[in-house]
Amino acid sequence: MTPGDAPPDAAAPVPRARPGGRTARTRAQVLDAVRAELGEHGYDGLTMEAVAARAGVHRATVYRRWGDVGGLLADVLDAAGDDDWRPPDTGSLEGDLAALNEEIQTAMAAEPPIMAALIAASFRSGKAARAQRRLWEDRYTRCEIVVGRAVRRGELPPGTDARRLLVAATAPLYHELVLLRTPPDPRLPGQAARAAALAAAAGAFTGPL
Amino acid sequence: MTPGDAPPDAAAPVPRARPGGRTARTRAQVLDAVRAELGEHGYDGLTMEAVAARAGVHRATVYRRWGDVGGLLADVLDAAGDDDWRPPDTGSLEGDLAALNEEIQTAMAAEPPIMAALIAASFRSGKAARAQRRLWEDRYTRCEIVVGRAVRRGELPPGTDARRLLVAATAPLYHELVLLRTPPDPRLPGQAARAAALAAAAGAFTGPL
Repeated sequence: MTPGDAPPDAAAPVPRARPGGRTARTRAQVLDAVRAELGEHGYDGLTMEAVAARAGVHRATVYRRWGDVGGLLADVLDAAGDDDWRPPDTGSLEGDLAALNEEIQTAMAAEPPIMAALIAASFRSGKAARAQRRLWEDRYTRCEIVVGRAVRRGELPPGTDARRLLVAATAPLYHELVLLRTPPDPRLPGQAARAAALAAAAGAFTGPL
Repeated sequence: MTPGDAPPDAAAPVPRARPGGRTARTRAQVLDAVRAELGEHGYDGLTMEAVAARAGVHRATVYRRWGDVGGLLADVLDAAGDDDWRPPDTGSLEGDLAALNEEIQTAMAAEPPIMAALIAASFRSGKAARAQRRLWEDRYTRCEIVVGRAVRRGELPPGTDARRLLVAATAPLYHELVLLRTPPDPRLPGQAARAAALAAAAGAFTGPL
């Protein structure tokens, strides 16, 4: 459980992508290579050398910008959050949560298993773990609108804690797929959404207990 | 994500413990050593040699009986399930689930972090992953009585699916502590228990959706 990577300041900060610039192109090539190597070989087969070769970028550049494998994984996760994703809007809380869970289950079952490999890698690298957490917390923030809409529709009591509700709705899916490694059950996204929506409507996520 | 260990039949099956016998003593010494090494060094520092030396057992014996590090971890997990643990009986469903979650949070926060290290190791070894799953499934089976008592008290509709309810009650805790790596929140065991109990009372876990 001890993160084996270098302290956060050991590598220079990754430059922000300038769309169309050379830095942005290099970053895109390198992160594509990380995802491909990770999907094919998992964490154990992921090396700075293989990523540099696959990306067609100098090894020295990869070391200078990303520092180590943990830095590469963290940047893949940060890049995953650098999109315009918005949560589903189906017209009901249960529908929104079910659609969200469907997206999670589809992503977790995708081949090559990039998302599953990134979660596994977060047990090997402190940098990857922190980036994974940033990505999830950003998703919770973006999903607050789902709860806001449900409150306005009168489906939920005012003061419902969005983050607690979102964790309750999605955690059973991650528990089955990531920790128990159960094969995907097509009913689970809807079942977990319904359970969380019923608990929320009954006031389970309002105020501190 | 690819389990790197040998196929299940590469090592001879671990002999069942005969209480008081030499086999049982050797097993206890070796599993104590595995837990100690894992707690001190994590998966990356766990070697057959270090375990044999710490246990005071011949290396050849450890290789012959457990095969590899994955075999050692799997046997630690199997031994953890070889107890007489019973779920709490507090008189209410919410109380039982909250007490169960308190036990989980306490175990996850224990030092040295054996339980957390075993979960992390399940991402490195297919044998450990399968043993972790066996342990969890056995715990769900033992907890069915919690749901049965609640149905008899009239707290839950008959036909409530115990496993689905138990996953819903405990998954938020594992999600926060294992995947998001949030520091333990003393309110979470009770909050997650209350949410699952409210959903269950509303019929979230009866019948297929």
